[in-house]
Amino acid sequence: MKIGAHYLGGGRCEFVVWGPFIHEIFVVIVSPMKRMIPMNKDTRGYWRMVVDDIYPGSLYLYQIDRGAERPDPASHFQPRGVHGPSLIVDHRSFQWDDSGWGGIPLEQMIIYEVHIGTFTLEGDFDAAIDRLDDLARLGVNAVEVMPVAQFPGERNWGYDGTYPFAVQNSYGGPEGFKKFVNACHKKGVSVILDVVYNHFGPEGNYTADFAPYITKKYNTPWGGAINYDDSHSDEVRNYFIENALYWFLNYHIDAIRLDAIHSIFDMSPKPFLQELVERVKSLSKKCERKLYCIAENDLDDVKALEPVAQGGYGIDAVWCDDYHHCVHTMLTHERGGYYKDFGRADQFAKAVREGYVYSWEYSEYRKKHHGSSSKDFPGSNLVVFSQNHDQIGNRMLGDRLSEQVSFEALKLAAGAVLLSPYIPLIFMGEEYGEDAPFLYFVSHADPFLINAVREGRKQEFASFSWKGEPPDPQDEGTFLQSKLNWETRDQGRHKLLLDYYQQLISLRKSIPALSCFDKKAIEVINLNENNLISVKRWKGTSEVYILMNFNNEEVRIVVRLDGGGWNKLFDSADELWNGDGSFMPLAVEGELQLNMKAHSLVMYEKAEEGS
Amino acid sequence: MKIGAHYLGGGRCEFVVWGPFIHEIFVVIVSPMKRMIPMNKDTRGYWRMVVDDIYPGSLYLYQIDRGAERPDPASHFQPRGVHGPSLIVDHRSFQWDDSGWGGIPLEQMIIYEVHIGTFTLEGDFDAAIDRLDDLARLGVNAVEVMPVAQFPGERNWGYDGTYPFAVQNSYGGPEGFKKFVNACHKKGVSVILDVVYNHFGPEGNYTADFAPYITKKYNTPWGGAINYDDSHSDEVRNYFIENALYWFLNYHIDAIRLDAIHSIFDMSPKPFLQELVERVKSLSKKCERKLYCIAENDLDDVKALEPVAQGGYGIDAVWCDDYHHCVHTMLTHERGGYYKDFGRADQFAKAVREGYVYSWEYSEYRKKHHGSSSKDFPGSNLVVFSQNHDQIGNRMLGDRLSEQVSFEALKLAAGAVLLSPYIPLIFMGEEYGEDAPFLYFVSHADPFLINAVREGRKQEFASFSWKGEPPDPQDEGTFLQSKLNWETRDQGRHKLLLDYYQQLISLRKSIPALSCFDKKAIEVINLNENNLISVKRWKGTSEVYILMNFNNEEVRIVVRLDGGGWNKLFDSADELWNGDGSFMPLAVEGELQLNMKAHSLVMYEKAEEGS
Repeated sequence: MKIGAHYLGGGRCEFVVWGPFIHEIFVVIVSPMKRMIPMNKDTRGYWRMVVDDIYPGSLYLYQIDRGAERPDPASHFQPRGVHGPSLIVDHRSFQWDDSGWGGIPLEQMIIYEVHIGTFTLEGDFDAAIDRLDDLARLGVNAVEVMPVAQFPGERNWGYDGTYPFAVQNSYGGPEGFKKFVNACHKKGVSVILDVVYNHFGPEGNYTADFAPYITKKYNTPWGGAINYDDSHSDEVRNYFIENALYWFLNYHIDAIRLDAIHSIFDMSPKPFLQELVERVKSLSKKCERKLYCIAENDLDDVKALEPVAQGGYGIDAVWCDDYHHCVHTMLTHERGGYYKDFGRADQFAKAVREGYVYSWEYSEYRKKHHGSSSKDFPGSNLVVFSQNHDQIGNRMLGDRLSEQVSFEALKLAAGAVLLSPYIPLIFMGEEYGEDAPFLYFVSHADPFLINAVREGRKQEFASFSWKGEPPDPQDEGTFLQSKLNWETRDQGRHKLLLDYYQQLISLRKSIPALSCFDKKAIEVINLNENNLISVKRWKGTSEVYILMNFNNEEVRIVVRLDGGGWNKLFDSADELWNGDGSFMPLAVEGELQLNMKAHSLVMYEKAEEGS
Repeated sequence: MKIGAHYLGGGRCEFVVWGPFIHEIFVVIVSPMKRMIPMNKDTRGYWRMVVDDIYPGSLYLYQIDRGAERPDPASHFQPRGVHGPSLIVDHRSFQWDDSGWGGIPLEQMIIYEVHIGTFTLEGDFDAAIDRLDDLARLGVNAVEVMPVAQFPGERNWGYDGTYPFAVQNSYGGPEGFKKFVNACHKKGVSVILDVVYNHFGPEGNYTADFAPYITKKYNTPWGGAINYDDSHSDEVRNYFIENALYWFLNYHIDAIRLDAIHSIFDMSPKPFLQELVERVKSLSKKCERKLYCIAENDLDDVKALEPVAQGGYGIDAVWCDDYHHCVHTMLTHERGGYYKDFGRADQFAKAVREGYVYSWEYSEYRKKHHGSSSKDFPGSNLVVFSQNHDQIGNRMLGDRLSEQVSFEALKLAAGAVLLSPYIPLIFMGEEYGEDAPFLYFVSHADPFLINAVREGRKQEFASFSWKGEPPDPQDEGTFLQSKLNWETRDQGRHKLLLDYYQQLISLRKSIPALSCFDKKAIEVINLNENNLISVKRWKGTSEVYILMNFNNEEVRIVVRLDGGGWNKLFDSADELWNGDGSFMPLAVEGELQLNMKAHSLVMYEKAEEGS
């Protein structure tokens, strides 16, 4: 069931809004000329009306039971923000330039996560487009855009969005986003859109005036949960499923990234997520383009990935926080909060081998058994990273890994992700060691809410050992501080790190063994049980051997590489990468005793036979 | 992890209680001689102490942090009720007489649901034992006992229990229940125990003083949900899993009936119910006796039945309310409340053919899609009934079907259940058309709670069309009214109905086609789309043809029975059953036009070849 205002052409627009308990709804045309048109209700509570003599760009509201006038919950654009009227968009008018675009296959993706507001000084899509060449040059082929659904004010990570169909006005609105996606496709870059189906933002959410989008069955950190299984949930599901399809159809995006599906509460025999994925897959088939669903799931539950026939949701890939936590704790030695559960080399070895570290083992932090085993799932089902918006932004000072560890360790972290048997994700700026933090920021209007957010942030850090107070999220300076400093990118160590990332990405793309996701084509050893991990990966005749020394000191190791010669392909300790030189030989055959530099990473490739 | 007081013999008893946030716990021996013994805490928050010089029958409490003294959450007996001290029970002392007992296989079960308090005038296990011969004579081979866990006061359905391990004192306590189970087994009757793992009763529940048994993540009609997936849930799971095993081991029960699993909220990768069933199955293997898990699930979700490998819970059978609702609405024409969703003959045909009527279709009552398809599950996975404690007791006046429909219709309902391809369940007294209602009753001590229960009942009936007010649940008279009148059982129509039930049960047991649960060996036709259902069932050479006329009038039908002669086995319209005589011939071969009496049921059996 289509919802929202659909411009039919010829000055006609169909309005559909859901309000099962409402007795009367009028479409209130706010501009260009004020008028009111009564709507008709069907048995499921959908109100509908085709209005004549109306054109794209017109503003409207819905008047409910002769009282409040509210924006459309399925508004396609909120030019004046979350409290203002909705605007009629004609999605047929944009001149797409991407015919024949097939999208980047998931297995080949190098994902780059972007927050539009801080990615550039201007903080909009137009400015972001200007940076696409830089990304393409880096080797990135998929941009993951943090949520763009209209949120309150002009500064927000995006998870406080209240109009899932409307593109943030301050980012450039619908036209801006379409131009951005179009430009990405022209440069051979897929677009993954972060969508939030687990809650509405706290300000400007008028959905409760219309219908039971929320249920009190479940409690979330944001209040009642989205109603996916209580009375009238069919229509709520429709709202979000239509939303996903809308982005694919009208904005040509290539994948959605479902935020926090652990907060999607649903005990139905047919879970919403199953239904959503099925609908996306059927659209994918119809438009002969592979469309993906990626998800964030704090539960480490492979049910997300399992096929529907096995009770799963059939999602294509999930974020793997465990991988991050292993790399982070081994390099920083932090043990506060959820890092308590990590820090051991055998855990990282398991992460490299299987994905989830917690496969229904007891978690000290969570005080219960946690997770499920991902060992039987191909590596392309998991997205890994050494940094992302949460892992940086949810630190009290929003400091990036580059502020926390040595340059050598930073390079090791990059290698651990980019040479992993999983889909790698880079957070904007990470590739050149951006100095700016990525802080938490909002721009609410309600003083009560502003205060609640401030207090909430403080509490969030209580279980970590950080001293002092977090920067004020509401302060514009907090937002401005978080912007990337593009001018530093080509300077000194920033430039070196950038080249380093570029080189690793290039190797990942060119060596078959590095893009193999078969769990049977990998052998991980926790060498000497000594924070030194070796990874052997192969595909056909292509074979690589990667050594990662997580110790902050030189380590003596014994390496045995049989079956012909092995040539060194990459060494982070090389002077080329600002290392202080490596003891690792250019070629290895048989057994060798070697000294490996602190926090270094080296990769050998098996020589072709006869060479 | 064993919890509670375990008498080790020789005057020694081990106490184990869970209290992760408590700093100090003493075992307080209340009698025979008051003394206090400090306990020791382990890393998971279990407190433990082996106490010497103590014997079964001693009373004890736990003193928490030098303050409140509370009964044991895992108390094995509360002789003075929910607020009193706990008693040490020696489970090794009972003289069991059932060695070699293997239990009745699920597929053969004829279940009889009993509420101990109202089953007899005395309202205890001893009196219930005296009635077992009557049940065995009826043909019942499994007694399902409504919850016996200690509840507040002396009158309660049992769903307000607060001590899941303690047998209700007013029913006869642990000794009484063991004698009852022992007697059942000696008569060849299995015992199914109704257990409540979805909430604690509202009075006498002191678990919150000990540990986080409850989570605020989810809201149930009874407040917070049992904590099966939040922090510290491992220990809560242990509590209930130990409970199930405890009943099987110490009370020799044959099956548990899990109350309302739709109110067990659990988003874990490994759900509690999966874990529970696994543990019961492994105990089953160990003690070489088939132990069953049966469940009530309002969601009509076959996930309960599916094997663990397919994401299911592996439960052996679930109650099928849809079957009841079909029979009930077709006979009573009631359409209030959830009956709105039923009433059509094609729905009943689907219920007979598949089980669940709602297999993800839209439910008008629930205002959403509902259910899942059970068509691929054998009939032995579903328990059906035309009456049960809920379907009677949750009517405002607790009136049984015998008060609502004609004697003919009552017989039809009995046949619809007992000749069904599912496991039949009879509610106590149903078999002879008991006149007494089965009302809702409680005996709380707290005036606030008493009032809340009264108001709750009134609200529950708001969506039905019943006039007036329900009887006062707290009034003892309400309880007394609900007791069976055994003295009427051998009189007039009561006796006739009893014989009728006995005959149907006997036929079900003796005719192979009637105990076949294969969904491929059944053919259901909604004849003339006219409230007249024909069911053909077969197994090997055994074949039956059942006709059920749900019309309150004579109906002309065309029957075609090929492949040799068919002999009439049973006809509810016969004068023998107080009918006014049947037009259905004693034998049929080929096509016949027949007149079938109002609300009658007839069954033909295919003659053996050559006969």
